[in-house]
Amino acid sequence: MILRLGYDIQFEIPATTAIVALLNVHPSRVEDLRAPDELLVEPAAQIENFIDSFGNRCVRFVAPQGKLRLSNSTLIWDSGQPDRVSPDAREIPVQELPHEALRYLYNSRYCEVDRFSNIAWELFSGVPAGWGRVQAICDWIHTKVSFGYQYARPTKTALDVYTERFGVCRDFQHLAVTMCRALNIPARYATGYLGEIGVPATLTPMDFSAWFEVYLEDRWWTFDARNNKPRVGRVLMATGRDASDVAMTTSFGIANLTHFTVISEQLSQEQAG
Amino acid sequence: MILRLGYDIQFEIPATTAIVALLNVHPSRVEDLRAPDELLVEPAAQIENFIDSFGNRCVRFVAPQGKLRLSNSTLIWDSGQPDRVSPDAREIPVQELPHEALRYLYNSRYCEVDRFSNIAWELFSGVPAGWGRVQAICDWIHTKVSFGYQYARPTKTALDVYTERFGVCRDFQHLAVTMCRALNIPARYATGYLGEIGVPATLTPMDFSAWFEVYLEDRWWTFDARNNKPRVGRVLMATGRDASDVAMTTSFGIANLTHFTVISEQLSQEQAG
Amino acid sequence: MILRLGYDIQFEIPATTAIVALLNVHPSRVEDLRAPDELLVEPAAQIENFIDSFGNRCVRFVAPQGKLRLSNSTLIWDSGQPDRVSPDAREIPVQELPHEALRYLYNSRYCEVDRFSNIAWELFSGVPAGWGRVQAICDWIHTKVSFGYQYARPTKTALDVYTERFGVCRDFQHLAVTMCRALNIPARYATGYLGEIGVPATLTPMDFSAWFEVYLEDRWWTFDARNNKPRVGRVLMATGRDASDVAMTTSFGIANLTHFTVISEQLSQEQAG
Amino acid sequence: MILRLGYDIQFEIPATTAIVALLNVHPSRVEDLRAPDELLVEPAAQIENFIDSFGNRCVRFVAPQGKLRLSNSTLIWDSGQPDRVSPDAREIPVQELPHEALRYLYNSRYCEVDRFSNIAWELFSGVPAGWGRVQAICDWIHTKVSFGYQYARPTKTALDVYTERFGVCRDFQHLAVTMCRALNIPARYATGYLGEIGVPATLTPMDFSAWFEVYLEDRWWTFDARNNKPRVGRVLMATGRDASDVAMTTSFGIANLTHFTVISEQLSQEQAG
Repeated sequence: MILRLGYDIQFEIPATTAIVALLNVHPSRVEDLRAPDELLVEPAAQIENFIDSFGNRCVRFVAPQGKLRLSNSTLIWDSGQPDRVSPDAREIPVQELPHEALRYLYNSRYCEVDRFSNIAWELFSGVPAGWGRVQAICDWIHTKVSFGYQYARPTKTALDVYTERFGVCRDFQHLAVTMCRALNIPARYATGYLGEIGVPATLTPMDFSAWFEVYLEDRWWTFDARNNKPRVGRVLMATGRDASDVAMTTSFGIANLTHFTVISEQLSQEQAG
Repeated sequence: MILRLGYDIQFEIPATTAIVALLNVHPSRVEDLRAPDELLVEPAAQIENFIDSFGNRCVRFVAPQGKLRLSNSTLIWDSGQPDRVSPDAREIPVQELPHEALRYLYNSRYCEVDRFSNIAWELFSGVPAGWGRVQAICDWIHTKVSFGYQYARPTKTALDVYTERFGVCRDFQHLAVTMCRALNIPARYATGYLGEIGVPATLTPMDFSAWFEVYLEDRWWTFDARNNKPRVGRVLMATGRDASDVAMTTSFGIANLTHFTVISEQLSQEQAG
Repeated sequence: MILRLGYDIQFEIPATTAIVALLNVHPSRVEDLRAPDELLVEPAAQIENFIDSFGNRCVRFVAPQGKLRLSNSTLIWDSGQPDRVSPDAREIPVQELPHEALRYLYNSRYCEVDRFSNIAWELFSGVPAGWGRVQAICDWIHTKVSFGYQYARPTKTALDVYTERFGVCRDFQHLAVTMCRALNIPARYATGYLGEIGVPATLTPMDFSAWFEVYLEDRWWTFDARNNKPRVGRVLMATGRDASDVAMTTSFGIANLTHFTVISEQLSQEQAG
Repeated sequence: MILRLGYDIQFEIPATTAIVALLNVHPSRVEDLRAPDELLVEPAAQIENFIDSFGNRCVRFVAPQGKLRLSNSTLIWDSGQPDRVSPDAREIPVQELPHEALRYLYNSRYCEVDRFSNIAWELFSGVPAGWGRVQAICDWIHTKVSFGYQYARPTKTALDVYTERFGVCRDFQHLAVTMCRALNIPARYATGYLGEIGVPATLTPMDFSAWFEVYLEDRWWTFDARNNKPRVGRVLMATGRDASDVAMTTSFGIANLTHFTVISEQLSQEQAG
């Protein structure tokens, strides 16, 4: 299937500020693109592309005082297959993990692994290691935490989610990531597009979505403690230790959001031509 | 001058566990070594060397149940010059920083940059940008925070240090790193050897030391909010976002420390031959 | 002047639960009442009145499963005078404070006095002690913290407010209370009615309001870090160490708020008859 | 039996400061005293006795700059009976609790009840209500938390104890108190003397001790999550919401502890005459 992806994000900038945006499709999905995937910055700015230490495509530019608009519209091919499920995927002992996976066992800003070692062990050590243990973590969080946009806040950590039991997408994933790491399972935070394909439509305006990835057997797998069921049409944009690493935009001065729309929808057969 | 470096670290391991050690001299200092710098693991274990995403030399091995000893003794040439001071070094606007420096502007486990933006601005915006502002941060912390081993704890964050005003080496540096990042100055946590060379001897047993590095002008510079004066004989081992990234040893199971000595001393002329 | 006070608060109660309500006028204002001030509970419940350890009038009852409505409508005489201002009111040394005031120097759930001693001293020790120092605290908070209902959350503490700089009424007062206590000035949290009398009308629906009281010279004085100007028509309902002590309703099981209106308005001369 | 109680506590006071001391036997035990129980303050100071809002005997005085010594030595009769155990004691529904017990259901500085409601419910709702549930809480904490003086810190809360799993006396009790309150069981923090009577002697220097009290059936009962077995010879000094309310000494300026001894021992028959 072909997905149309895009966004229109606008800010009011009170004073010139540098911005780093992770608003492109992840390099691992570039070959699936069916149209250019270029961030349009208005007013026009000199744009610099680079790949960060996590492998994400980043754009850096300077936003002058005034209105700023970041937009994009592209097309991508998608298999139309739901997230892969592999109940037999094994946990890999730390000594056998690829080096690159090790950093996803450590603490990060919103994932206080050091405060969860006992809690995670008490809750999940009884579940057989491997895919099932990660799924048990997702099930627990999905059951125990309630979703609500009013519960979002930028400084909320996994421990806050664990005690408050309310949150948005990112909060569910932060808690899951932290539990996994506390059990020596590499886990990383992921952001991207997730349209309502093959699921009952909601009236909620689209947003970018967060999920997480876990290293089992010989690769990274997608999990999602918020939706907690295999979904069709995820398009990865970035992965990192937690939301701090992969914010859609990080501005190094004040940037007041004034408008925000995201699109991720399946092209009809006619449109897809 | 020639420095003798070494350590003898012993653990009691209740059950087989993987360990990652950052106990070698940093790659940037390898050319100064005058003797092999190899971590000796007893009982002998299969050792794997790799470079992590921060550029540090890491060693991974499996420690069996029982006693574990990690030791090393090497020699390194040192210029004998104190930490460079460059009062005219300028802050670099975020848009001109090398990409690699950007990640040191972000949040990390013990450096809650997102909670310090106002505090840092209120305390230090009145100080001219650049070297002097970083020095002002160090002066403030050096004056306000008291040192004491009894105040160490593994989960202590920059915000804890800011409110409690007590801590060990790492706590001083975490607070400084966080203040710098909150002011858009790239700052990273550093660990290594720091002997008592050219300073009054203390009776305190040697430990590894922590300091931090700041990106100004066109390079990283050493700062040290704990000692807060240029020192001779630092030998860098690792840099990272904070202490979580560069722990001397990260064990993925229980490892109870039973013995710990570190040496970092200048060879006499006779010894140096 | 005569004020009409009232509220209509409705809950959905999933399972029988005990509730304690602080929804009456404070005993210190009872003599000003011009109509009965009785909490109406629907469905009718056996109601028990008592005075808590802080001197507040409390009501306890059991809410059965189903809808619960708490309402009231009363009249009270008010002097029409704004909050008293007494710039010469002195701070009282701790050894001379009335015993009853001492507990308002201590820590409480949302007021971590122990984490603010240095911060408060650094910010306000330069201001002469007494009324002016309390006013300086209010000015600082009023300037630095931004109001917004979306920033409310039940577990937010003074330290959160200090770092986040966003909050609702209660957050402003918690931070002010904590700063005062850290400077050895007794301060207590207060709740009550505060209509828009003599101030520009807003379109915001009325809510109960929070302010705080400080012991200076020989009595408690009203301060309000949120509005930060003398106001007409405050009607005190309860005082305590912080919001935890004086919640309008504390339910010991789940109670989902479904409706909430508060009225506090001046009767016209005709109405007042 | 007759117990000899006493202490010798010394401070260095850098600048005149007011102090409130809770260093007397609790009013509930006054009738058991066999010798005067008077705090000796040196240098002599004007002493003021009062009862605080929790019913504790308090002493307030001004300590001048210099050395300060607080000492006492008294005798008290004790039944010699271990803490009462009453496995059938019932939990009392909130609506039937005495008013005075209600405040011990609320949040306090070190007992974040609002963050534990889910955690406590998940851990202990499966245990039948009443004495057994409180005992289950003590058992859990006693098993999960390790004691160590090096883990003491003044700002440590129940949530810290729950995640860190290390602490001193007060930390064990704070966590237990918080769990109880989260389950609607009134619980208060208690301090006093607890000698090593009828238990194996340790080499640890005596300290004051902390335990907690729970309201069940028709009275307050002693529990102790640290020792977790009935003990002989507790002499209550103070109860409050948590350690902040009942510090042995609260100084409103700097007071550096220089010496600390406590005695609580059984008089031999000869001594007891």
